[in-house]
Amino acid sequence: MNAWEKNIRKVVPYVPGEQPKEDGIIKLNTNENPYPPTPKATQVAAEFDMDTLKLYPDPDAFALVNVLADYYGLNSDQVYVGVGSDDVIAMAFMTYFNSDKPILFPDISYSFYSVWADLYKIPYERPSLDDNFNIIASDYYKENGGVIFPNPNAPTAVYTTLDIVEDIIKHNQDVVVIVDEAYIDFGGKSALELIEKYDNLLVVQTFSKSRSMAGMRIGYAMGNKALIKALNDVKFSFNSYTMNATSLVYGVEAVKDDEYFKTCIDKIVKTREVAKKRLTELGFTFTDSKANFIFATHKSVKAKDIFEKLKDEHIYVRYFNLPRIDNYLRITVGTDEEMGKLVEALREIVEE
Amino acid sequence: MNAWEKNIRKVVPYVPGEQPKEDGIIKLNTNENPYPPTPKATQVAAEFDMDTLKLYPDPDAFALVNVLADYYGLNSDQVYVGVGSDDVIAMAFMTYFNSDKPILFPDISYSFYSVWADLYKIPYERPSLDDNFNIIASDYYKENGGVIFPNPNAPTAVYTTLDIVEDIIKHNQDVVVIVDEAYIDFGGKSALELIEKYDNLLVVQTFSKSRSMAGMRIGYAMGNKALIKALNDVKFSFNSYTMNATSLVYGVEAVKDDEYFKTCIDKIVKTREVAKKRLTELGFTFTDSKANFIFATHKSVKAKDIFEKLKDEHIYVRYFNLPRIDNYLRITVGTDEEMGKLVEALREIVEE
Repeated sequence: MNAWEKNIRKVVPYVPGEQPKEDGIIKLNTNENPYPPTPKATQVAAEFDMDTLKLYPDPDAFALVNVLADYYGLNSDQVYVGVGSDDVIAMAFMTYFNSDKPILFPDISYSFYSVWADLYKIPYERPSLDDNFNIIASDYYKENGGVIFPNPNAPTAVYTTLDIVEDIIKHNQDVVVIVDEAYIDFGGKSALELIEKYDNLLVVQTFSKSRSMAGMRIGYAMGNKALIKALNDVKFSFNSYTMNATSLVYGVEAVKDDEYFKTCIDKIVKTREVAKKRLTELGFTFTDSKANFIFATHKSVKAKDIFEKLKDEHIYVRYFNLPRIDNYLRITVGTDEEMGKLVEALREIVEE
Repeated sequence: MNAWEKNIRKVVPYVPGEQPKEDGIIKLNTNENPYPPTPKATQVAAEFDMDTLKLYPDPDAFALVNVLADYYGLNSDQVYVGVGSDDVIAMAFMTYFNSDKPILFPDISYSFYSVWADLYKIPYERPSLDDNFNIIASDYYKENGGVIFPNPNAPTAVYTTLDIVEDIIKHNQDVVVIVDEAYIDFGGKSALELIEKYDNLLVVQTFSKSRSMAGMRIGYAMGNKALIKALNDVKFSFNSYTMNATSLVYGVEAVKDDEYFKTCIDKIVKTREVAKKRLTELGFTFTDSKANFIFATHKSVKAKDIFEKLKDEHIYVRYFNLPRIDNYLRITVGTDEEMGKLVEALREIVEE
């Protein structure tokens, strides 16, 4: 070991889902939207003045902040934007979770939470979900340094109703509570309506799923202005110009074209419900997904085997080799055509 | 104070240079390139398939990493890319500077260094530059937790010759030494040639200045593969997908169009040398800039007054109200036309 290596931060990096580069695959492994971004984004892209790229982008990202504030009926000082919700939540961990007490998040949830906690040396505890993968609110009544959970949860797709979400917030008014709503647009009810009542609540959402812009890296947080200011202060201590010029311009169009947004979501929800029926017929069971993915297990064939065999057919889904969920597959809801091909491939695998 | 506020990280955020939104101004305050990005970028932008934005970008940013590796004659595992050099250096602070000993950087240098150190609770000391704003190498011989300095320095524009840079690295082989070369393309010699000799050396550069792409947020680091791996591990613990799809595509063109790159730099260097003459005629003195900005002081008129009066004329330069440099202006080198207007405005101010 070189002498300088002793000062290097030790981390176990998050391993993202595969981004295979081959053509002609069916990609149902990273919960992307199967539909392209709004055509309005294509229009502004064509009109975009490339010469302006010589200049720094607006450090306050006001164009995007303002359109989000308008859309959700908030003031601009209640909205923060970042480079995907991963960037937003990482900044939030650094900003809000500076207690000696452990932060709390479910044993099964977004795998980045423990990675961020390790990165920033934040202690944490992980209360267990119940046997049906539901959050047990009373597990979050104990003293802690902060709370975060996804709603709907990932990778389980289970939605926590707003009365339970509020119960958790109510019992934790001395710390910041983050509700990570990456998948809320696919059938859940956002905790956004609670931010006026609870000044310690931060709601985080993303353009990567329901708004079809994973490639543009846009996430955002909403909360009371003291929370948002604290987050901006840390962001301005890290990198003033995180949002690049094209993200700001395309992102605005994604918010403005609400009709297109809702049409895509409707299609995905319909496809999801049909897929649930087909999967049931094939002997799968799953949680009641309110997300754009289905978390499924088969009565006789092992998830890991199905995962491998699907890959042989150039169909990518996600498999987590982790306690309690190692016999489940997380299947992104694609187009009707993609899901049809998936079901055919699954039929061959399970009836083999 | 709300109870949850006690856990909030205390920071003094960096204040970036103004990004005025009015039209018709002359903007010489944030060291941007006065020339637009390569026309090749406009071409790929027109051909860009917007539908692909529904997908996450390549987390490894290989297209950009590979083209940079080719350009500089390195292997791909010796190159790291991030969201501007601010993002790269912030990650580097978090990755490499985990010692109890203070890191060292000059008293006058990029103002973000102390902000990042505060953000990550890294102790630091700031050896003084000499009276001509030169780095004194022997100040960096003492025990420390790491070293960073810009070359050319900002905001002084002073270039440190490679023998002095090497002397500092040679005396600090037990820690990571970062040479921040945001402005190196405008006349300095990069420390890149030393990375094979010193495995603790990280060289950081950016697309925001010489490559005319401040709006796209691209920075990069080069070093031995163990250093780069450590940086990638931390990046993957923070946000897997930092580089958005458009940045990757436009960035590749900026590197490939070397002729355009060199033509723009030549123009800026010529304009800078002419501006130096004009400024001398007006009674200014300045350091021997090897950057795309001039750090100037006037024999009789105060820098702050000049700064304010230029602003009244819609000409923006940068003024730092800081010890030792509070009678200097940092003036970005714009086009010949912009510099002509600046000189005229300055003439009126100093001859008033």
